[in-house]
Amino acid sequence: MATMYPRASSTGATPSEEMNGTGNLMDFLDEPFPDVGTYEDFHTIDWLREKSRDTDRHRKITTKSKESYWELIKSLLDAWSGWVVMLLIGMLTGTLAGVIDLAVDWMTDLKEGVCLSALYYSREQCCWTSNETTFEDRDKCPQWQKWAELMTGHSEGAGAYVLNYFLYVLWALLFSFLAVSLVRVFAPYACGSGIPEIKTILSGFIIRGYLGKWTLLIKTVTLVLAVSSGLSLGKEGPLVHVACCCGNLFCSLFSKYSKNEGKRREVLSAAAAAGVSVAFGAPIGGVLFSLEEVSYYFPLKTLWRSFFAALVAAFTLRAINPFGNSRLVLFYVEYHTPWYMAELVPFILLGVFGGLWGALFIRGNIAWCRRRKTTLLGKYPVLEVIVITGITAVLAFPNPYTRRSTSELISELFNDCGALESSQLCDYVNNPNMSRPVDDIPDRPAGPGVYSALWQLALALIFKIVITIFTFGMKIPSGLFIPSMAVGAIAGRIVGIAVEQMAYHHHDWIIFKNWCRPGADCVTPGLYAMVGAAACLGGVTRMTVSLVVIMFELTGGLEYIVPLMAAAVTSKWVADAFGKEGIYESHIQLNGYPYLDVRDEFTHRTLATDVMRPRRSEPPLAVLTQDSTTVEDVETLIKDTDYNGFPVVVSRESERLIGFVQRRELTVAIKTARQKQDGVVSSSVVYFTEDNPQVAEACDPQPLKLRRILNLSPFTVTDHTPMETVVDIFRKLGLRQCLVTRSGRLLGIITKKDVLRHMAQMMNQDPESIMFN
Amino acid sequence: MATMYPRASSTGATPSEEMNGTGNLMDFLDEPFPDVGTYEDFHTIDWLREKSRDTDRHRKITTKSKESYWELIKSLLDAWSGWVVMLLIGMLTGTLAGVIDLAVDWMTDLKEGVCLSALYYSREQCCWTSNETTFEDRDKCPQWQKWAELMTGHSEGAGAYVLNYFLYVLWALLFSFLAVSLVRVFAPYACGSGIPEIKTILSGFIIRGYLGKWTLLIKTVTLVLAVSSGLSLGKEGPLVHVACCCGNLFCSLFSKYSKNEGKRREVLSAAAAAGVSVAFGAPIGGVLFSLEEVSYYFPLKTLWRSFFAALVAAFTLRAINPFGNSRLVLFYVEYHTPWYMAELVPFILLGVFGGLWGALFIRGNIAWCRRRKTTLLGKYPVLEVIVITGITAVLAFPNPYTRRSTSELISELFNDCGALESSQLCDYVNNPNMSRPVDDIPDRPAGPGVYSALWQLALALIFKIVITIFTFGMKIPSGLFIPSMAVGAIAGRIVGIAVEQMAYHHHDWIIFKNWCRPGADCVTPGLYAMVGAAACLGGVTRMTVSLVVIMFELTGGLEYIVPLMAAAVTSKWVADAFGKEGIYESHIQLNGYPYLDVRDEFTHRTLATDVMRPRRSEPPLAVLTQDSTTVEDVETLIKDTDYNGFPVVVSRESERLIGFVQRRELTVAIKTARQKQDGVVSSSVVYFTEDNPQVAEACDPQPLKLRRILNLSPFTVTDHTPMETVVDIFRKLGLRQCLVTRSGRLLGIITKKDVLRHMAQMMNQDPESIMFN
Repeated sequence: MATMYPRASSTGATPSEEMNGTGNLMDFLDEPFPDVGTYEDFHTIDWLREKSRDTDRHRKITTKSKESYWELIKSLLDAWSGWVVMLLIGMLTGTLAGVIDLAVDWMTDLKEGVCLSALYYSREQCCWTSNETTFEDRDKCPQWQKWAELMTGHSEGAGAYVLNYFLYVLWALLFSFLAVSLVRVFAPYACGSGIPEIKTILSGFIIRGYLGKWTLLIKTVTLVLAVSSGLSLGKEGPLVHVACCCGNLFCSLFSKYSKNEGKRREVLSAAAAAGVSVAFGAPIGGVLFSLEEVSYYFPLKTLWRSFFAALVAAFTLRAINPFGNSRLVLFYVEYHTPWYMAELVPFILLGVFGGLWGALFIRGNIAWCRRRKTTLLGKYPVLEVIVITGITAVLAFPNPYTRRSTSELISELFNDCGALESSQLCDYVNNPNMSRPVDDIPDRPAGPGVYSALWQLALALIFKIVITIFTFGMKIPSGLFIPSMAVGAIAGRIVGIAVEQMAYHHHDWIIFKNWCRPGADCVTPGLYAMVGAAACLGGVTRMTVSLVVIMFELTGGLEYIVPLMAAAVTSKWVADAFGKEGIYESHIQLNGYPYLDVRDEFTHRTLATDVMRPRRSEPPLAVLTQDSTTVEDVETLIKDTDYNGFPVVVSRESERLIGFVQRRELTVAIKTARQKQDGVVSSSVVYFTEDNPQVAEACDPQPLKLRRILNLSPFTVTDHTPMETVVDIFRKLGLRQCLVTRSGRLLGIITKKDVLRHMAQMMNQDPESIMFN
Repeated sequence: MATMYPRASSTGATPSEEMNGTGNLMDFLDEPFPDVGTYEDFHTIDWLREKSRDTDRHRKITTKSKESYWELIKSLLDAWSGWVVMLLIGMLTGTLAGVIDLAVDWMTDLKEGVCLSALYYSREQCCWTSNETTFEDRDKCPQWQKWAELMTGHSEGAGAYVLNYFLYVLWALLFSFLAVSLVRVFAPYACGSGIPEIKTILSGFIIRGYLGKWTLLIKTVTLVLAVSSGLSLGKEGPLVHVACCCGNLFCSLFSKYSKNEGKRREVLSAAAAAGVSVAFGAPIGGVLFSLEEVSYYFPLKTLWRSFFAALVAAFTLRAINPFGNSRLVLFYVEYHTPWYMAELVPFILLGVFGGLWGALFIRGNIAWCRRRKTTLLGKYPVLEVIVITGITAVLAFPNPYTRRSTSELISELFNDCGALESSQLCDYVNNPNMSRPVDDIPDRPAGPGVYSALWQLALALIFKIVITIFTFGMKIPSGLFIPSMAVGAIAGRIVGIAVEQMAYHHHDWIIFKNWCRPGADCVTPGLYAMVGAAACLGGVTRMTVSLVVIMFELTGGLEYIVPLMAAAVTSKWVADAFGKEGIYESHIQLNGYPYLDVRDEFTHRTLATDVMRPRRSEPPLAVLTQDSTTVEDVETLIKDTDYNGFPVVVSRESERLIGFVQRRELTVAIKTARQKQDGVVSSSVVYFTEDNPQVAEACDPQPLKLRRILNLSPFTVTDHTPMETVVDIFRKLGLRQCLVTRSGRLLGIITKKDVLRHMAQMMNQDPESIMFN
């Protein structure tokens, strides 16, 4: 009899157990089994259970706090520990972001030259500190020497150009080689943007070491190297990963968070907000990003704490002041003209472009990543990085818009052409009779600089589009916020200049007549760049609200919310038409993480009975009975199956469910009993009943009472429950498994993985074909 | 046997039913019974069921859309109807807000005088349009005449003062009498702020007519009257109610929303965001307010739509431009100096003040409202309003800071004293040698005007504190955002001036040494007013993030987030120490609405078995059996009990649950069968089984098959489930009731009201006493 328990409970996931279900168990058994609170690697956590455990802990502290002053202080410290963790996370994240910014600045410039007055100065710092230079003469800063000038003494000529070119490529190769080697050798988890994994972790999955100290260290260092190498990648996504590592680090200081996977995730949600906050200098945007994009469970308490962490991080960063302008934000812009209704047309067109770019990028990138996973390509990650870096550096150097760092490029594209601007993009033909106020410059015809800039920007656009698809997903830290924004900003600036010139040359056209009289400043190409950046970022990530808030915090003005919103929503709609999933969800799917997306609506008509195991053709469910299974039966069952838990029924005939027992606890309990309890032998009967079993004769083996490890409140649904409801329950309650009954009889089990598998199956099939078979 | 079903299912709430549980029922029975989708007044909705019904509807449309182009267009229209509703809500809410603003401006000024050039102009419009006045001469605007001047020709002297005083009080009494009469006669639901009720409605409660057209109309009109009467109340809360009424109005245009209470609530959440958006000109703050304070279920889709509605509303309002300055926001301020770390001390003190005010206000107001409910006072609402208006007007007129409208007061308090400011508050002693730049004015000693203003402000503070406690909750529309902010702004300004003067006179003190050198502009009293306003609002409502975002949108600068956050968090902590509930939750509790607060953590150790009905001493649960109850039994059961649903079991002996049937559907089904189905008599047996019943002999009465109305997937928990988990399930899944089983046997039922009652009981008792009995 004991040999036939073929199909049992949850597959590949440790079973759930609501500790409280066992009544007052926690009182006399503080830690009933070692490691009972932890989960195994690559397993899902049970949110209800974690919550229960935290409530128990909290209850115990509250009870104790009435006993003595010391306990009262301890309980107050416990209550405040959440805020302390937030403060620490904010401070460390802000500091790391500042250090990364400074290091990236310095190393990016190192590719081109070096500061003679102080080797550790970036070009901007070098020229700022030198006395001779004024704002407009920055280009002639003598302290800063390009490599060719330093080595050969010549700063002009073909030889110098080739030498600079060569050294630029060499430095890029060196940086990226260092980055990929460090990742390969020390912390494989440090690669990528980290956001797909963090989303999965926050949804209740365990990936040990993903947020470890080692990953934190290596990711910080390699992020600097990767960004400095000039590859088409950004630091924003990885900064979220870095912030989450900080969060995890500080969790380990407080047992409240380190011992409870549910509470730990609350901290991590807030840490993600702090990460975005420092990445863009946008604390509110960071909180909304965490809420909209990253987090799974986001209680109100987390909202407040996230906001606090985001603020602390932003102000720590401001104190470090890496941009040297005491601005909090990455791309501070100030526009002087409002926008006009008619401009919504190009804004929406930019939205369409952003959506198309998003769809193209996701398809292309996923296809390439799949290729990497399945072909030989994946075997040579170092070579891949070297090759891509080589191509990037060789193609990037000749074009001034790709040679510099991507954030500088975006910053220049966003900028309005003020009177003091010396950039090529602002080379307009000025009316010599006109007095030039600093602000409010009327529209002017474009000069030759603008036209050549347009060509270079167009080439840069194509280059960025292609290279980014191949870059994202390599074995180095890589974010895609900045490259996506760059693509959008380039496209937007081109459109902006086109509209501006059209308005200047044709201000008698009907559409321009009302809003663009001659001599008026009516089109701001920088705003188009910003709208384009928002559209492209929206197309790739499918964020809307947090995106608009981030962009709005970048500019500091409410005026441009409508253009941004129009572009973001258009781009989302266009991109959604090609595929519902954003880049992060696509990568989650590619990696096969068990992520139950809250946004996917499950609308199929299947019932619980269609999804539960065992299926009709399979052997019956492996169950224990409450008073007729022997120790040997249980041991055989544990040996023969790999299920992580077993339902317990009244008897094999009635099939009435009384509880659920975890494999792990069962193993430990039997082992302990065999060692320590006299009379427990293989033929001892295992009892899960409430009453003491009656031992018929003295010679019978001692029974083994295991009610204390029985979870008396397993979650059940009936076999007729629509899967839609089941999915909802799994999502909202964070269950790991759920038992299926009919008329009080146990029929089967549904695990989170069964649900995910079923959903995937439904998505790929025609709903009609499933509904009626 | 049929006479004894004493204790049955859910008390006082129509039962839940997941329509999908009945399999393909929806296919052939489109509307099985009239009104089956609706709920009765003052009943809770079942979220799972509403969701199920919407999915069914959606599925049907998707299937149909493949049939013809017309259906495809219809399905696209359906998909877009959500955005259309948002657009309409935004436009109507913005328009109404604009109209209300204009009307309030005009009528508030009407209390003091009239514009001769155009009677419908408010004072500001009157003086702006008159040619003779410049910005600084606004006070001497000749077109605007006070009543005394108009009637007697004298604008000065005691007689004129008394006449103006008399007319001021008279107008106030007239306005408030009109307001309270309109509310009493036409729309009793139009009174109060409406936010507590909207919170309850959004959590899934039905209050018919609360969001009706009539309420919308009357609330809009009486809001204008109430605000104009000069009572200590604001229009922000009621605007949220107005916006929700608009939302409800437009819901009725689309069957998708009008027929589904769950979907309707999604729209209402977004409407609430639009309401706050126009109240403050803060779209992002509005969305966060809806998320943090008002809404219960807030899916991501609602986030995007709320944002859209809030934006449309804000831009409609801007198009109407009621403030005449093309600013979106209510109190636009611009400060020229940063804040210093040392200033955090007064900011935190203001936070403490805000918290104390919040606690005092909530206690006082709730005590007064309770008195109103229980004593004779409640019988004379019109008299109460008249008396309070009289007192307010009589006391307010002599003090220039209370005579004007509260928003004007706040606006002046927030303002920085620029060079052009002519207000008494800016009467500083100027150094005659100093050139006066428009911005950046150094700190100066206060002149006599400032000192007299301080006294008047102190009196205004006491007056506002006392009168607001008695005003909020009267039978007129009344918001408490503005009065709370006024209290905080007054206190803040007083503190600000004190710190400023201290810094000016003692800039050699250690604390001032570093940040306040002589001749520097180092303290901005307006900022203190803003921080104080945030603190007081935070103390009363307990919002934090949305509050800070609203304040930050009001000022348009990220710089002051830290002071605002510090004050808001301090005030929340201080106020929380006196009672966990904000004013809205307190009013919900006072009115006894069934609101399951997501923020209350349930940490007691009770089990489902302690809460379920029937209790130990009570008669057993009223159940139906699947194949042995006669029609007469059922009819007796329906007559004898008032439960809204009955569980169906296999047999009275086995007690194995097979489903749940709604009282309403049961009644209709039996009535229909008796009329239309031959052979159904009192002794017919009602069958809920799947197989066709076997009729033994021909002379036996025809059986009545009722499986189609049986919900086959009722929600169950075991009797050992901790209540903490049960509360979580009720909250997250929005259940109405839940059946309790043990080993597959039906034991009892828990309804939402049982849960609420149990929670209230636990809150008032010592947890220790419950834990061990």
